[in-house]
Amino acid sequence: MAQQARIQAVAFDAFGTLFDVYSVGLLAEQLFPGKGATLAELWRQKQIEYSFIRSLSGRYKPFWDITRDGLDFAAARLGLALDGAQRTQLMNQYACLSPFPENLAALRRLKDAGLPTAILSNGTPEMLQVAIKSAGMQGLFDHVLSVDAVRKYKTHPDAYALAPAAFGLAPERILFVTSNGWDAAGASWYGFTTFWINRSGQPLEALDVAPTATGRTMDDVVAYLIGGRG
Amino acid sequence: MAQQARIQAVAFDAFGTLFDVYSVGLLAEQLFPGKGATLAELWRQKQIEYSFIRSLSGRYKPFWDITRDGLDFAAARLGLALDGAQRTQLMNQYACLSPFPENLAALRRLKDAGLPTAILSNGTPEMLQVAIKSAGMQGLFDHVLSVDAVRKYKTHPDAYALAPAAFGLAPERILFVTSNGWDAAGASWYGFTTFWINRSGQPLEALDVAPTATGRTMDDVVAYLIGGRG
Repeated sequence: MAQQARIQAVAFDAFGTLFDVYSVGLLAEQLFPGKGATLAELWRQKQIEYSFIRSLSGRYKPFWDITRDGLDFAAARLGLALDGAQRTQLMNQYACLSPFPENLAALRRLKDAGLPTAILSNGTPEMLQVAIKSAGMQGLFDHVLSVDAVRKYKTHPDAYALAPAAFGLAPERILFVTSNGWDAAGASWYGFTTFWINRSGQPLEALDVAPTATGRTMDDVVAYLIGGRG
Repeated sequence: MAQQARIQAVAFDAFGTLFDVYSVGLLAEQLFPGKGATLAELWRQKQIEYSFIRSLSGRYKPFWDITRDGLDFAAARLGLALDGAQRTQLMNQYACLSPFPENLAALRRLKDAGLPTAILSNGTPEMLQVAIKSAGMQGLFDHVLSVDAVRKYKTHPDAYALAPAAFGLAPERILFVTSNGWDAAGASWYGFTTFWINRSGQPLEALDVAPTATGRTMDDVVAYLIGGRG
């Protein structure tokens, strides 16, 4: 328990970690039968790629906008005629996401255990507020941190630095929880203690760095933090 | 001809622009029938993604090494049992690439026209020297510039800045030529005059910036630069 006892706060990635983006793929499949999974995957890939490129080049643009840009490129790349209504429908899925099934109870257990919590996300403050409400997670976070405050996306150190600043804690005292392998790598490099929720059994990213701990669901995060004490 | 007449030097991206990486996909298909195209695509995607993430996080590692890392991840992700010999075979493809068919004659025309030329690549100096030799391009470049000198990958401005420094010219006086849409965007943001060789009919990246000119082959670059004078 030595490692876990040193943790004094928890910061969560949002999309794909707290909020289940699976519904986006479902809608994409309804709109473009047989191509929905490919569209959703390429959309996500371009959204993240654009966040990296814009940060590298110092050309920040809010996450809502690059999410739309990623959708536009993905549709064009796949030769799909995306009309304005379909575009709006798909984008709106990002504004009404469900939590993963175990997340609400897990977050309440952490809250009951007295651990300060934060969201640390690429999403804009507006996206995060809407998503928190849609997922029924109001009141579960002490801080809702958006990289919009520093205009650099993860994995830039300035983005991760928002959490230590908000908690007033050294990075290693904060458990950073994410489902994204690249985010776990960046956060580990930054200095957080890290937990990778590897929901779909992905291989570890080949980036010469491993998360401090790995599990399959948010319940594993709870067990890691308070399992021995709860 | 006002635009073209202002161009006083040309800098080329290497892999996919000067050197045809198609043979890599061919070998992947021989080694893993039915999965070669997917492996080659995911490999390339992870190679570039790792270059972005490492630059954002200040964790540079030479391109040869992240190329191997990208291959390892891609094989693991696809559940392919990549043995040491197959890994070596695939990596060696990067060391014996062919030029695109029209490239040698096109480069000679630019050379004959008296335009100073450079390679500006993510590749290590060693990779570039071997590739130049393998493609029969010895003597066609005044400068062979690797981002290894600044330990930051494109699209970081420090990487692009190698060309103006080598030529002693302002960025807009240099035509930067690339087949990669994201590289064309980064180079345009940086300030180069840019030419995107869009060989496979890709849509423009949704990054709010367009290359100065677009074509399908290196011959279009020659036509753009000296077509009216040749």
